[in-house]
Amino acid sequence: MGNHSEILQNLIDSFAKLPGIGRKSARRISYYLINSDEKVSRRLSEAVTEAKNRLGLCRICRNLTEHEICDICSDGNRDKSLICIVENFSDLYMFEKLNIHRGVYHVTGGLISPLDGIGPSSLNLNSLLERITGDGVKEIIIGLNHSVEGDTTALYISEKLKDSGVKITRLATGIPIGGEIEFTDEITLKQAFVERRNF
Amino acid sequence: MGNHSEILQNLIDSFAKLPGIGRKSARRISYYLINSDEKVSRRLSEAVTEAKNRLGLCRICRNLTEHEICDICSDGNRDKSLICIVENFSDLYMFEKLNIHRGVYHVTGGLISPLDGIGPSSLNLNSLLERITGDGVKEIIIGLNHSVEGDTTALYISEKLKDSGVKITRLATGIPIGGEIEFTDEITLKQAFVERRNF
Repeated sequence: MGNHSEILQNLIDSFAKLPGIGRKSARRISYYLINSDEKVSRRLSEAVTEAKNRLGLCRICRNLTEHEICDICSDGNRDKSLICIVENFSDLYMFEKLNIHRGVYHVTGGLISPLDGIGPSSLNLNSLLERITGDGVKEIIIGLNHSVEGDTTALYISEKLKDSGVKITRLATGIPIGGEIEFTDEITLKQAFVERRNF
Repeated sequence: MGNHSEILQNLIDSFAKLPGIGRKSARRISYYLINSDEKVSRRLSEAVTEAKNRLGLCRICRNLTEHEICDICSDGNRDKSLICIVENFSDLYMFEKLNIHRGVYHVTGGLISPLDGIGPSSLNLNSLLERITGDGVKEIIIGLNHSVEGDTTALYISEKLKDSGVKITRLATGIPIGGEIEFTDEITLKQAFVERRNF
């Protein structure tokens, strides 16, 4: 041992390539699959194949969908003049679950990160500009993380849109509700102090 | 939305059932698969199918193997009188990578945990007793975690083997090498003090 058999190595590698799964988890999952009923692995492999065959990205916002245009974009009750920009499908799902956004989305598929070789052109950003030109959009809500990459991407988007007349907003930062001042990181605390609101 | 399409839900569920993958990761992985080249998902689903068809558990120790008996158990250079009991394949792999054990293994497939309904009979423990009766075993090294469940399982094994005359050992506990006393948890520190060694 020390070397795995080729088949096992291949299984571990396939899982380790997925986002958020390290080699340790990949080994655990592999052992679990070999060890469990054949139905478990068959269902997984069928689910992957079927999803890949039947699901795709919405032509407008790149949300996951079974159709050419996703349920949100084709919903007549959603406000098309209000676009929330999200990094990925998980973030979009969070907003939907909370039922706080009555507009539509635009999924970037990532954040600008020069160090990782991810520039604006690797992301789904150009189509955003086209959407805005055509669609009578009034407000862009930047729903990206407040990280260096999120800030860079937000800045890029706001630069690109500055002559469009569209209102651009971003999620508020501050001390999390229920959070303690003592345990808040310095940057957040400073920012929350500077941006203090009337009570 | 809020509700996923059935196909997507099925994909997310299949991943969320795997050990160590929560619903959030499952959603990220699902989006990644739909978003990436068809080769990625095909390779994954083929790897799962092939591994399930071709791999199984060693008849002797329940390590993963392509054969009836794994490479370690069938290796004439490994000391069959020295069995290291491990919880799972990942732990076995750790020992092998470090090249510290010249004997063979016995994979329990879990730890005794009454609260989770896992009793000795759900684990691969009875076959251990059979192995010891037949095999001229001299030492059992309990290579299980030092957790409540690991301790319970170790105690069960040592109880079962107490009349066998086989030497039973367990991995040493103590302050990790490079670890700082200030940051060592109380139980570990107390135990390390009580079991201090001659210098």
